[in-house]
Amino acid sequence: MADESSYRPLFFYRILITIDEDDRPSTARAFRFALTMARDYGAELGIASVLENNDISIYESLMPAKLNEKRAHLHSIVKEYAAKAKEFGVQDVRPIVSEGGDVDDVVLQQIVPDFEPDLIVCGADVEFASHGHPGAIGLRLARKSDVSVIVIR
Amino acid sequence: MADESSYRPLFFYRILITIDEDDRPSTARAFRFALTMARDYGAELGIASVLENNDISIYESLMPAKLNEKRAHLHSIVKEYAAKAKEFGVQDVRPIVSEGGDVDDVVLQQIVPDFEPDLIVCGADVEFASHGHPGAIGLRLARKSDVSVIVIR
Repeated sequence: MADESSYRPLFFYRILITIDEDDRPSTARAFRFALTMARDYGAELGIASVLENNDISIYESLMPAKLNEKRAHLHSIVKEYAAKAKEFGVQDVRPIVSEGGDVDDVVLQQIVPDFEPDLIVCGADVEFASHGHPGAIGLRLARKSDVSVIVIR
Repeated sequence: MADESSYRPLFFYRILITIDEDDRPSTARAFRFALTMARDYGAELGIASVLENNDISIYESLMPAKLNEKRAHLHSIVKEYAAKAKEFGVQDVRPIVSEGGDVDDVVLQQIVPDFEPDLIVCGADVEFASHGHPGAIGLRLARKSDVSVIVIR
């Protein structure tokens, strides 16, 4: 049993939530948990979404306007979440949009080193359906990440 | 994006922490997080440990006194954690000791249906080394459970 002195409160200072463009039921619950923690403990909240290259068809990649539209759409979704977070009472909110081939890699190799969260919040059924690996991204982040991960159901 | 009305706070009412007999570094952090949540949101805290049948040698199974000693030891550890939780300021604490062949199954089939947690807290390096499946139990619970799971690092 650990020393008594180690039982001081533990909470998180930098909370990252990964959101799905589609509105999966668990995303809303995960977002609510992230909002609650960030507000009640004064944590900074990073709200991240990933534009996967798999989501971009060859047709679109040949049409920069179409691609920019897709990017702009994702930015507007993340900004909408950020606005809701401020409304909820979270002081520090950072909207994050990244792009890459593999959503796990983008989160772990780009977003996490940049934002440096101490907690990643993810809905259990956020799947990024287009994604090569089937199954929930939260579970893969829980396995691969070196920070704490909560999978919300 | 979900309806604005869905963004009410989300926290947990029944928090289960699974502890390892050995004092892994992540157990102390996981325990601190569970204490903090349970105290700050008035949740009931279940503190569970599992006596795995694999831990019981044939020699011991033929010696009821030895087995009872092992049980009593685990009970005393869990009770010690429970006392620390009360000291920390958690009002409702339930010490739980279970036995079975497989720690995952015991947690998911005995402890969870009985305690009915809405959050399971687990240290990332709680391995139950004796256990058939290598790797952290928290990750397996995150995958198999139908409640939210946080893996603390």
